[in-house]
Amino acid sequence: MNSDAIKTQILDMGARARAAAHALAKLGTEEKNRILLAMADALEARETGLLEANARDIAAAEENGLTAAMIDRLRLTPERIAAMGRGVRGVAALHDPTGEILREWTPPNGIRIQKKRTPIGVIGIIYESRPNVTADAAVLCFKTGNATILRGGKEAIHSNRAIAAALREGGAPAGLPDDSIQLIPFTDRESVRHMAEMDRYLDLIIPRGGAGLIETVVSLARMPVIKHYDGICHTYVHAAADLAMAEAIALNAKIQKCSVCNAMETLLIDRAAADDFAPRIAAAMHARGVALRGDADFQKLAAGTPVEPATDADWTVEYLDLILSVKIVDDLDAAIAHINRYGSHHSDCIVTADPEAAARFMNEIDSATVFWNASTRFSDGGEFGFGAEIGISTDKLHARGPMALEELTSYKYLLFGEGQVRG
Amino acid sequence: MNSDAIKTQILDMGARARAAAHALAKLGTEEKNRILLAMADALEARETGLLEANARDIAAAEENGLTAAMIDRLRLTPERIAAMGRGVRGVAALHDPTGEILREWTPPNGIRIQKKRTPIGVIGIIYESRPNVTADAAVLCFKTGNATILRGGKEAIHSNRAIAAALREGGAPAGLPDDSIQLIPFTDRESVRHMAEMDRYLDLIIPRGGAGLIETVVSLARMPVIKHYDGICHTYVHAAADLAMAEAIALNAKIQKCSVCNAMETLLIDRAAADDFAPRIAAAMHARGVALRGDADFQKLAAGTPVEPATDADWTVEYLDLILSVKIVDDLDAAIAHINRYGSHHSDCIVTADPEAAARFMNEIDSATVFWNASTRFSDGGEFGFGAEIGISTDKLHARGPMALEELTSYKYLLFGEGQVRG
Repeated sequence: MNSDAIKTQILDMGARARAAAHALAKLGTEEKNRILLAMADALEARETGLLEANARDIAAAEENGLTAAMIDRLRLTPERIAAMGRGVRGVAALHDPTGEILREWTPPNGIRIQKKRTPIGVIGIIYESRPNVTADAAVLCFKTGNATILRGGKEAIHSNRAIAAALREGGAPAGLPDDSIQLIPFTDRESVRHMAEMDRYLDLIIPRGGAGLIETVVSLARMPVIKHYDGICHTYVHAAADLAMAEAIALNAKIQKCSVCNAMETLLIDRAAADDFAPRIAAAMHARGVALRGDADFQKLAAGTPVEPATDADWTVEYLDLILSVKIVDDLDAAIAHINRYGSHHSDCIVTADPEAAARFMNEIDSATVFWNASTRFSDGGEFGFGAEIGISTDKLHARGPMALEELTSYKYLLFGEGQVRG
Repeated sequence: MNSDAIKTQILDMGARARAAAHALAKLGTEEKNRILLAMADALEARETGLLEANARDIAAAEENGLTAAMIDRLRLTPERIAAMGRGVRGVAALHDPTGEILREWTPPNGIRIQKKRTPIGVIGIIYESRPNVTADAAVLCFKTGNATILRGGKEAIHSNRAIAAALREGGAPAGLPDDSIQLIPFTDRESVRHMAEMDRYLDLIIPRGGAGLIETVVSLARMPVIKHYDGICHTYVHAAADLAMAEAIALNAKIQKCSVCNAMETLLIDRAAADDFAPRIAAAMHARGVALRGDADFQKLAAGTPVEPATDADWTVEYLDLILSVKIVDDLDAAIAHINRYGSHHSDCIVTADPEAAARFMNEIDSATVFWNASTRFSDGGEFGFGAEIGISTDKLHARGPMALEELTSYKYLLFGEGQVRG
């Protein structure tokens, strides 16, 4: 298929998604929940078909020499399909934020105003290898009354098609409007460009994947993009920290799951606490298999624990691995300056018993989530009580930090007049 | 100056704005208000200098053959400078939304969470000929703790420089952080490109001007852009409308100020009301100098009032003039379909005595502001009681409709732990 034909087909999908969005906006919460349960039923009933489709992707991946980790991300199992179904049922059980009156008032002109929460409209999701994103993203968008256009990676194309078909065909008899959930059948880069330029039909794009994918979308997109960039998260052990608490928090933030965006990448130790804390944490991290990279001061204080010298690049890298950079800082100001300069404005923590230091840190750190005395691993929609999340936004507009159902909505103003005209 | 040197200078302004944003985030409301009053004093005290700078722009405009309307938009007078000063004092008197706790809760993990309203950071404003935008935009952003990088049109460069200098130098002795308000000294298109690519330093760009300017910014920008596109606003006269009210609302929406985005451009008349209403409104509009363009049905019903035939293009044009397109529609569904298809999702009105028809219209019209029985001219931050507005957003993300101080803020999450780690 040539590029013009692909473009025409994607634009046609956009127009149909826009029509679907108007139909979706009329659905009530109970109707939507009934449709969601029918989708979950269909996912579960189609286990065999989903596994067959996935087997084709796995075979291609093996043939193409993908790594074991990549193949694992791609793989569907009966357990994973069951988890997908449970996820859809979980979304059905969540509170539907659309329709809420966010504010209501009557200005001096006498026209009553309601600010009402609405769906956004049409949301594009561009993602990489995990096929479960097809279901997760589509149902969160559907719950909030949005149509979706999904564009997954080529590695998972057969699995993605089977999942999208299960949702669509499972939802249809329960009342899912046509074209509410569409999967782009092309996996070339051109299809991303056509989506990104289709601002007439797409109100928002959410890329889910690595920095390369996000960069591509950002540079092409004409519509808003909500980005989920790296988490270069810090823990700062303040002069007034309880050092046992600091050790527990730092170990948890680094080790409990190191491959995720809310794991700690850099530990900052206040000079006033460093003589005691540096050798202790160096030994504790080393004992748990963490490779350390430190500035000259930390190397000296690590008391025999092996520490590679940190270079400037170490302050701006998301290892997603059992690697930790460590720096000794002079004081609270130096810690704040380091984090605001080198961090990714995702999640950062101060450990201290001093409320004034904590307040300054929380006010001045320019990050989505700022912790006092808790592991950055809690930066998560589930831990926040949101029930689900579509990602953790590193943007400041519309959605910042854990992004769940409310962040998939917009609003409109309804004005109730009695014939008023402007003088 | 060559392009590389311009780029270097703009990047340097970006870095300095980021530093200023960190300083601004620490200012309290009283400090900010004191600085705003000092800025207002400076604008008033520098009347002579501002008029001199403006005279240079006016002389250049006359030499370059700008139209009288363009020269009027450009002109500063003692009254307009006084209005600018009063505008700044007005902003000082407004409620400061930053620092508000939007929500506070404790999920099962026991970590108390506060969602706190914060400044956005650094906002770029790209605008055209009116020099008062320099003051209006900068002070609204400052009130909400944001640094600004302003890039005005070349026609107003001397006026813009003088106004920005007055704000900066007037604010400095009262505590305005350095580089809080910067004006880009270049007015070529390249400078827009450099701003639009500077996503490291600019959190948001707001273009204020015509569709061409917005298009340029949208196609170049890597950061969020809040767009203030056309207002193709409709009034729909329903079968159950009070026709005297409908006439008054339609006349007001078209005539009271026709050059603005919330003026009506298209009138839809329900077929059931058309026999009575069409000749009446045709005569009333014509008597007030409005040129009419109608579909075949309206032309027939206009009973001798001259009506040009409307073409398809008439349904998608923002006349900003005493011109009105009129269409007879079969019913409520047809009206909703027309508006959602041809409108610009800005402001639309139904006139009816039927609450059910009104409810359907208000729910299904996909526009920022939807009116029942009031003129679309009320779609305005001032009329909403916001005290000020930076524009009317036609976007659905972050800000929709009249955009004031709250929409110039972001939020962050503060998490108060007691040593919690994730299990």
